[in-house]
Amino acid sequence: MLNKTLERYTAITEEKLGQIVKQESGLLQNTVFDSMRYSLFSGGKRIRPALVLGFCSALGGDEKKALPFAAAIELIHTYSLIHDDLPCMDDDDMRRGRPTNHVVYGEATAVLAGDGLLNRAYEAVFSEETVELVGAKTAIEAGRVLAGAAGVYGMIGGQIIDMENEGKESSAETVNRLNELKTGALIKAAAVMGCIAAGANETQIKAAELYASCIGQAFQIIDDILDVVGDAEVFGKPIGSDADNNKTNYVTLYGLEKAREMAFELTQKAKNTLDVFEKPQFLAELADMLYERNK
Amino acid sequence: MLNKTLERYTAITEEKLGQIVKQESGLLQNTVFDSMRYSLFSGGKRIRPALVLGFCSALGGDEKKALPFAAAIELIHTYSLIHDDLPCMDDDDMRRGRPTNHVVYGEATAVLAGDGLLNRAYEAVFSEETVELVGAKTAIEAGRVLAGAAGVYGMIGGQIIDMENEGKESSAETVNRLNELKTGALIKAAAVMGCIAAGANETQIKAAELYASCIGQAFQIIDDILDVVGDAEVFGKPIGSDADNNKTNYVTLYGLEKAREMAFELTQKAKNTLDVFEKPQFLAELADMLYERNK
Repeated sequence: MLNKTLERYTAITEEKLGQIVKQESGLLQNTVFDSMRYSLFSGGKRIRPALVLGFCSALGGDEKKALPFAAAIELIHTYSLIHDDLPCMDDDDMRRGRPTNHVVYGEATAVLAGDGLLNRAYEAVFSEETVELVGAKTAIEAGRVLAGAAGVYGMIGGQIIDMENEGKESSAETVNRLNELKTGALIKAAAVMGCIAAGANETQIKAAELYASCIGQAFQIIDDILDVVGDAEVFGKPIGSDADNNKTNYVTLYGLEKAREMAFELTQKAKNTLDVFEKPQFLAELADMLYERNK
Repeated sequence: MLNKTLERYTAITEEKLGQIVKQESGLLQNTVFDSMRYSLFSGGKRIRPALVLGFCSALGGDEKKALPFAAAIELIHTYSLIHDDLPCMDDDDMRRGRPTNHVVYGEATAVLAGDGLLNRAYEAVFSEETVELVGAKTAIEAGRVLAGAAGVYGMIGGQIIDMENEGKESSAETVNRLNELKTGALIKAAAVMGCIAAGANETQIKAAELYASCIGQAFQIIDDILDVVGDAEVFGKPIGSDADNNKTNYVTLYGLEKAREMAFELTQKAKNTLDVFEKPQFLAELADMLYERNK
């Protein structure tokens, strides 16, 4: 069931993304659309959209109403990868087996394509189509969660911390905080936006936050493990990106065995939060799948 | 009256900006706040916020309700200057008499500070405080106008066109389109958001759009004139930035005298749109002030 559902979520998310960031041909600024689409359609696993759609469905909500938010969060994730890859940031030439955006389109266009995707995420939330579909109140609430998670108190804050800890030895507290913000914040926002789209109650939103926080941390731990023992790519991190810069991570902090154990326990804890949902099966299987990368 | 009102608008806008982008000291990502505030409080003329507040007041609206939008548009304007100044873009070392953001904080932090300001603009629109003050419908409508103007069909689109026309001879049509998007779109959004905050009708919004489009174009023409005959800085363009790269502009297209005449006519046309507003004096004087830079 998991793979079929994931495939379907990916298909509807990509259709929506294609509507939000159209192929333009008659505009003087065509290039920026090409550049945005290059990174947007480059084989991302669409895990964040799957969380938005999965939580909405787990609550018996109408997944159509979650779709604009699923697309918006993927737009933001994609912009963050483009800016992260820039020469002045991680200076990565390859991502997902293809040259990075700035390698193909030049740095200036890559900066603007990133800006454009970030801005377009909010255009999608504010759009007449979205507001007609979900109502002004839901659009505002979901937008608030997304913007809070993407900004300087969320993901961007995490990127700053990450940069400043490059090549340093960091405390477990710093590593936790960094991951909580850099990757955790958007994962949590995805879960909560799915809940908001389905009209969830406070208890369900709290459960979703806990689930997301657990799989987010488990994901990061496994990522650190894979940087040591081999690799896979699910959440869109560049392959092996952290392996060679001596950054403190969960493996350097706790060792391989203890790290594996932590990831296992976090995955179980995530699954245990799901009993307040009507149809939790997809989310339980998703947690397992993310853990299984470990093997 | 004009200067007093402008000073007051600047004061309340800057107070609001200071609340939205706080000085943080207890966070691991403090640097990004320092970097955002460095550019945010660097002597900008706050013309766009003045348009938001001025249109709201011209309609007899409650200027408190326009204030979050006045701040949001200034956040977006500021982010665009930081990214524009980057080495990979215009590569400017100085702005408003001070070293540019990346010179002080490094390129990576400057990219993230720009991203942070852009994102923070939408956080401000979505915030509980804003929504309580203006209602969900108004927040959504103003946010839609802002996001549309800031994005790839607006300002970012204009930046791409600008970049691609560097050092080329361009048609009058391209020059118009470029300016319409790069600076005109946000100026128009400012006017329209002020109207939305005051609950304007369609006729008033159309008039505001025409006013903004006229002063936007007049402003650009005068900017091009000043690049030839001397300089001043109002809308935040780097001093003399376009003078030395052989770009086609209004002066190269029409000559000094004709360009001056066009700016004068556009200013008159802007003022003529104002008779549908209750208290148009500030906006009329503002149009004159922007034109007077010419002398």
